[in-house]
Amino acid sequence: MKKNILVIPGDGIGPEVTTWGKAALEKIAEIFGHEFVFEEALMGHAAIEVTGEPLPDETLEKARQSDAILFGAIGHAKYDNDPSLKVRPEQGLLKIRKELGLFANLRPILLFDELLQASSIKPEILRGTDILFFRELTGDVYFGEKNRSEDRNTASDLMIYHRYEVERIAHKAYQAAQQRNKRLCSVDKANVLESSRLWRETVQEIAKQYPDVETEHMFIDNAAMQLIKNPKKFDVVLTANLFGDILTDEASQIAGSMGMLASASVGESTGFFEPIHGSAHDIAGKDLANPLASILSAALMLEIGFGLKEEAKLLVDTVDQVLKEGFRTHDIADQTTNRFKVLGTAEMGKLVLK
Amino acid sequence: MKKNILVIPGDGIGPEVTTWGKAALEKIAEIFGHEFVFEEALMGHAAIEVTGEPLPDETLEKARQSDAILFGAIGHAKYDNDPSLKVRPEQGLLKIRKELGLFANLRPILLFDELLQASSIKPEILRGTDILFFRELTGDVYFGEKNRSEDRNTASDLMIYHRYEVERIAHKAYQAAQQRNKRLCSVDKANVLESSRLWRETVQEIAKQYPDVETEHMFIDNAAMQLIKNPKKFDVVLTANLFGDILTDEASQIAGSMGMLASASVGESTGFFEPIHGSAHDIAGKDLANPLASILSAALMLEIGFGLKEEAKLLVDTVDQVLKEGFRTHDIADQTTNRFKVLGTAEMGKLVLK
Ligand SMILES: CC(C)[C@H](C(=O)O)[C@@H](O)C(=O)O
Ligand SMILES: CC(C)[C@H](C(=O)O)[C@@H](O)C(=O)O
Repeated sequence: MKKNILVIPGDGIGPEVTTWGKAALEKIAEIFGHEFVFEEALMGHAAIEVTGEPLPDETLEKARQSDAILFGAIGHAKYDNDPSLKVRPEQGLLKIRKELGLFANLRPILLFDELLQASSIKPEILRGTDILFFRELTGDVYFGEKNRSEDRNTASDLMIYHRYEVERIAHKAYQAAQQRNKRLCSVDKANVLESSRLWRETVQEIAKQYPDVETEHMFIDNAAMQLIKNPKKFDVVLTANLFGDILTDEASQIAGSMGMLASASVGESTGFFEPIHGSAHDIAGKDLANPLASILSAALMLEIGFGLKEEAKLLVDTVDQVLKEGFRTHDIADQTTNRFKVLGTAEMGKLVLK
Repeated sequence: MKKNILVIPGDGIGPEVTTWGKAALEKIAEIFGHEFVFEEALMGHAAIEVTGEPLPDETLEKARQSDAILFGAIGHAKYDNDPSLKVRPEQGLLKIRKELGLFANLRPILLFDELLQASSIKPEILRGTDILFFRELTGDVYFGEKNRSEDRNTASDLMIYHRYEVERIAHKAYQAAQQRNKRLCSVDKANVLESSRLWRETVQEIAKQYPDVETEHMFIDNAAMQLIKNPKKFDVVLTANLFGDILTDEASQIAGSMGMLASASVGESTGFFEPIHGSAHDIAGKDLANPLASILSAALMLEIGFGLKEEAKLLVDTVDQVLKEGFRTHDIADQTTNRFKVLGTAEMGKLVLK
């Protein structure tokens, strides 16, 4: 199989971890005899520094021509500390999601047995958890009109949904539920928000086309609680952009660490694969980041992007094996015991490749 | 001390639990020689059934004339299942918050040692946690303009903040932080939302007036994760209406159960005291609800509403004592051991009064 892959390292720990996601893809190509052709491009603060823009036209052009994109992370302390800056790294990520029509963000909560202890949640609560989030990615308050009054004393963002936006992601989520445990929980705030009422109404309609899937509707506040109280009760979770952002980060504690979770954004064309962690500028360049989420993002690319199940499985199994052998990066090491061999980013990356 | 207290039982388990919050206030009045005069009023589904409106004028009038309000819960399955209904119970709660100018919702995460085991989070992660949430309560996407297109295919809610709204709650939160551990974490989504950028800018300004308090800014997705990863690192958390709704429900797992958490809404006049749990219609009328959050709401009324610290402490200590003696309601009982004496709502209520 021949594929063109665009690598966008981005900001902070992005470049360090993406190195290993890319290396994993190269290794897989070698083992299975595929041809993966790589290109690189800039986005975020890294792109602003060079071109003045968070998403240069050239990057977007390359993205459109590629078969899949491996992305690192975005964001920089400078912008976080100064809310008045007009050009911001995150605009690059939002724009590429919109331009490529990546309306469905899939975030599987993959639970490695070996990491049950790394979570702040009790192992007996976690064991057996298997959740697949469908987060809507090109609508909501992320993309609605933004306003700042002239005196700068009033600011607003429009939370807005169109029925077709809810329908298309709902179909994807229901289809996935049919392949899994046939339960779907749709999360909204329909007791307060009109956009959530449209969301709920639409999901109720779509649900009728999937009578084999059991549907539940839950308010976001309750969901944020239930997710840690009893994660096992969830199978597929379907939710809006903002609520999905919050819930999936929270859910990373189920997997032991944010450093373990990958996500796939799909929609109209090219798939986009990235860790769910952020740019973590505080640890960037210190060889402390966990490269496993990037390697697992590569696995998602193989599976969801290219339909290469066996190849994806080899990567996931290798990660599992490395954890079984007691190797850990800092974020997933239990500092109170010395049962683990704690590795830096590069050592961990190399080990998985071996 | 003479005080007029309005009791609004509301919907679902509201009436069952509020009975005990009120009884606790009566008992305190008797012990300390205060005169508490009670009135009752309708709100939510309970009010719609009788008057057609979720907040009858009479209730609002009584609320304005009272010195404090003890509220139960709001909401009903009928409306949750039918997003198209125009008159909804929650509108009553939102309207009374707005009309009384209750812009600051204080949610202390009170951790009873005895309940460390009741949480899904590991006791060693929880121990020592002491968080006070300040949730903004009369702005945000809760109160911004709502719209539904004529063809009903597009729906929106305006997420909007004015600088003065952020300022007034920020001052309250900073003043509280000065009395506590002098750390304040402000939660927003300033990397994406304009309203959050106004929020962050404003908090940065106010922070300068409280140089003795250490300020941190955190994105909501990260906060949802950090809250369960390392709850001890938080002291005062300041956030917007929607984010506060989500984070405080999530934080209820720190306290072992939602059935244990009380909240105080204050602002321009009369204080409003309520459990943070919802109407839980699935268990309503079954003597299964936990009355402790209502009793602790009564304690907050005594302390924050009336400045009666000793009286409040007696209530909190009594709850603690009852837990120490091994008594539990269903939500906080560990079903796997029989170390606990599991009680119904009424038995638990009576026990605390004794
Ligand atoms: C960086 C930020 C804009 C982004 C988001 O909020 O979508 C990130 O948190 C994510 O979840 O991918
Ligand atoms: C019932 C609902 C409108 C309310 C809210 O979202 O504010 C509740 O969840 C709360 O937290 O008090």
